[in-house]
Amino acid sequence: MTVHPAHTRIELGDLRVPVTRVALTNGETFDRYCTSGPGSEPDVGLPPLRAAWIASRGDTASYDGRETQLIDNGRSAIRRGEARDEWRGERRRPRRGENVTQMAYARAGIVTEEMRYVAVREGCDVELVRSELAAGRAIIPANVNHPESEPMIIGRRFLVKVNANIGNSAVTSSIAEEVDKLTHAITWGADTVMDLSTGEDIHTTREWIIRNSPVPIGTVPIYQALEKVAGEADKLSWEVFRDTVIEQCEQGVDYMTIHAGVLLRYVPLTAARVTGIVSRGGSIMAGWCLAHHQENFLYTHFDELCEIFAAYDVSFSLGDGLRPGSTADANDEAQLSELRTLAELTARAWEHDVQVMVEGPGHVPLNLVEENVRLQQDWCHGAPFYTLGPLATDVAPGYDHITSAIGAATIAMHGTAMLCYVTPKEHLGLPNRDDVKTGVITYKLAAHSADVAKGHPGARDWDDALSKARFEFRWHDQFALALDPVTAESFHDETLPAENAKTAHFCSMCGPKFCSMRISQDVRERFGSELSAEDAALGMKEKSAEFVELGASVYVEPRG
Amino acid sequence: MTVHPAHTRIELGDLRVPVTRVALTNGETFDRYCTSGPGSEPDVGLPPLRAAWIASRGDTASYDGRETQLIDNGRSAIRRGEARDEWRGERRRPRRGENVTQMAYARAGIVTEEMRYVAVREGCDVELVRSELAAGRAIIPANVNHPESEPMIIGRRFLVKVNANIGNSAVTSSIAEEVDKLTHAITWGADTVMDLSTGEDIHTTREWIIRNSPVPIGTVPIYQALEKVAGEADKLSWEVFRDTVIEQCEQGVDYMTIHAGVLLRYVPLTAARVTGIVSRGGSIMAGWCLAHHQENFLYTHFDELCEIFAAYDVSFSLGDGLRPGSTADANDEAQLSELRTLAELTARAWEHDVQVMVEGPGHVPLNLVEENVRLQQDWCHGAPFYTLGPLATDVAPGYDHITSAIGAATIAMHGTAMLCYVTPKEHLGLPNRDDVKTGVITYKLAAHSADVAKGHPGARDWDDALSKARFEFRWHDQFALALDPVTAESFHDETLPAENAKTAHFCSMCGPKFCSMRISQDVRERFGSELSAEDAALGMKEKSAEFVELGASVYVEPRG
Repeated sequence: MTVHPAHTRIELGDLRVPVTRVALTNGETFDRYCTSGPGSEPDVGLPPLRAAWIASRGDTASYDGRETQLIDNGRSAIRRGEARDEWRGERRRPRRGENVTQMAYARAGIVTEEMRYVAVREGCDVELVRSELAAGRAIIPANVNHPESEPMIIGRRFLVKVNANIGNSAVTSSIAEEVDKLTHAITWGADTVMDLSTGEDIHTTREWIIRNSPVPIGTVPIYQALEKVAGEADKLSWEVFRDTVIEQCEQGVDYMTIHAGVLLRYVPLTAARVTGIVSRGGSIMAGWCLAHHQENFLYTHFDELCEIFAAYDVSFSLGDGLRPGSTADANDEAQLSELRTLAELTARAWEHDVQVMVEGPGHVPLNLVEENVRLQQDWCHGAPFYTLGPLATDVAPGYDHITSAIGAATIAMHGTAMLCYVTPKEHLGLPNRDDVKTGVITYKLAAHSADVAKGHPGARDWDDALSKARFEFRWHDQFALALDPVTAESFHDETLPAENAKTAHFCSMCGPKFCSMRISQDVRERFGSELSAEDAALGMKEKSAEFVELGASVYVEPRG
Repeated sequence: MTVHPAHTRIELGDLRVPVTRVALTNGETFDRYCTSGPGSEPDVGLPPLRAAWIASRGDTASYDGRETQLIDNGRSAIRRGEARDEWRGERRRPRRGENVTQMAYARAGIVTEEMRYVAVREGCDVELVRSELAAGRAIIPANVNHPESEPMIIGRRFLVKVNANIGNSAVTSSIAEEVDKLTHAITWGADTVMDLSTGEDIHTTREWIIRNSPVPIGTVPIYQALEKVAGEADKLSWEVFRDTVIEQCEQGVDYMTIHAGVLLRYVPLTAARVTGIVSRGGSIMAGWCLAHHQENFLYTHFDELCEIFAAYDVSFSLGDGLRPGSTADANDEAQLSELRTLAELTARAWEHDVQVMVEGPGHVPLNLVEENVRLQQDWCHGAPFYTLGPLATDVAPGYDHITSAIGAATIAMHGTAMLCYVTPKEHLGLPNRDDVKTGVITYKLAAHSADVAKGHPGARDWDDALSKARFEFRWHDQFALALDPVTAESFHDETLPAENAKTAHFCSMCGPKFCSMRISQDVRERFGSELSAEDAALGMKEKSAEFVELGASVYVEPRG
């Protein structure tokens, strides 16, 4: 699962916390955060890393669980009379407890293995982890039924995280393809993955994904609930939804998007928008509210939902069903009204010790981006913000990974804790394997840009290590340290394919006869890298003579 | 030269100012700024649009001009004993005057055709154009020997512009390839193009480029001067440089990067940097200063340079030879010392009525970006800022069009007037044709994001037109309005290739059975797009009944 021969997965300490160790040609090493997991056979799944930790806490018990029904896999399973491609690996009985959330432990002053694991991963003190969890400013999404997951934390005091969406839709399909996208996403650095399947085999696809996922898995359960009522939103009910949530809690979903802030009275606020309601979940709930002229059942049953989530440690991702779908609609009354309700729901979830993050837009012009974080952090008492981009302009379909990376880096710099990636296919089609990679890489660089801008401890070390390799013409190290070593090396080789070009002290931009980096090195050799400006100015006359004496060489001959 | 069947080049008014008119399927049209020119046969070149305007001013005269020498095409031409692939189109005698700059006219209260042309292009009052030029806050790069160019303006009160770099290097070559890159760059929206050739046939390549370019052409004359002294920077002299500048003035170069701010005393400030001096021009001049222990000859001869530029109306692009080459070196003393000198040189150029823009970095973490514009605008009295990105992180070679688009959108939002593109090949190799397109599109979306964020008059109209098309399922219009219609349509077709999918009221994200956009339209139909929230709330009960009566349809059947 490593992407370059110079990369190795190293495991630190008694908890075996993974890092990717990059071996450099100068004998140094550089450690990078590792999301790719220990690797799995798709048919078998991953080992249950957290099973012993969960069991040893003694506050959960296994039970028979809900019986799987044909409709769990959609209407086509009913037509066929059977599910297909069923999970072939081990089937564990589900567990549950009373109030077994990482927030509950943190508030009780208990330091869990999950917290210790995260502290090693982030290179911070475990007390920071515990206290941020206790305050609700960070979450560790960690369903007791997803013991395969390697704990990670989402919060503004920690590294900015990236989520990748995968999942089939009614017009495409294949479980193996989705598992492959999962693996591809985490290989390139996705911190969490959302399974947004809306097509066939929903239950089974999710089982394969969770059993093979070393990262937390999120879902939007209303999609499956809608499938259970034949796609007719007005037939939805709390009972169908509750059944779906329990089904997914037992499978091990770590966080769920719940559109409980789409209140009946907010729906008309969207009528005059340029793009109305663009969230699928938001429009389903809006449709239901209008059809029944009743308040959103996710809102009216919110406390029941909290009780369920507390029993499995499922985290809320409070959905922004009324997010803007165009820059024209950004920061409008519909969006901000819903955000106020999400703030109210955050406080209610915290009464149940349930972990919460809050979802954000979407499409926002750059001048309005900061306000989104400021209001969310203020109103929601610092609960982690989880945004989709936002896109800084609507005019570039086909490049919305970039239009949104611009907004994403900016919003993360101002305090967003996790970014939901956008692929080049956004607005146009479903991402394939390559799109998943492009989306993840683009968002990793946006997230890292934000870490650097925030002055996050150690964030710039990576930039410095790569820049030093670049300056010293260590081409192999530059590739190995790159976010995407494969692409970096192949682009280099397009112009200069010969192996000796990778040890040469020049590149194809300036060619062998002249190279600015080389001149800089000459300057350094003559003035010393530690000279102060004053010292240097004093010594310059002398050095100048020496420079000319040495041949005043300011260009480089080919070395190859 | 249009990229989509729905696009037509329209010419407005007596000056025949081009716009790209997009015909929409609902009978409306949308006009976009057009950079692609009227189209040319490479062998023949473009018609001299501005020739009559220039002649009618009566302040320039043609003269014999400098005789071309073999060394103008580099050392290989000398070895061969002849130039090759010489320009086959019309050869005009060069013109010059005394003080024929757009700034001089603007300061004298004269409104030129160039200013009128630009005002139509920008959709603004011509007095804004004249007054911004007079104040030095904007430039129209328009050498009297490049009459083929369609005038454009660079300044913070106008649309943010994008420059594309092309040019061969010592390890690659072909004039036809470079002309093709020029055409490709302007087709996709480049507002100016810099020819950064450092390899063979420099003079001839530039001739072909200028004669075929409807956009201003910029160069870095020190590259050619270095070639004339066999690549040995210490052999450079004011005389060789001056000769090269005149050669390029007579060919029609519209703006030139001049690294006159790299002062001898600043060079040691770079010794302790992570990446030293990364500007090619900067390191050439630093090498020269050190070798001779003399002040930079571009600085000491700056007034002479101004006199030459004034005679042809060549604009300065004051080069930032000491720009940071890594986020670690951003906003350091070397960079800011040079900027103070560039401010001094700006004022000196303005004494000669010579137009000036100032170049900026490079590599800057997001939290330090705004300071770059603020200091430049403050110190340089509002002269247009022209930045290369900046890259917000160093860790993603292969994706530096994106790492830099993040910085570029941000710096432009704060007042940068023109962005120099970065392609995916940055740091790795020379951009090919596809890289040029990717770089231009990426920078156009960054520039437009900044226009929207600045609230530039009319900027968001484009976003709104596209978003409306999206909301109304006008797929063909969404493609036609996209920055890159070709890519948008091909991505859509990858998932749903059938023609009827482009008239269908759904897409592959949600599939035919459910679509949030459609629900929003139902909401609008029932509540009316102009209803206030209060009105809507009052009428909601009634509407709700009606909604259910109509079948409470919240999903969409396939229409195809």
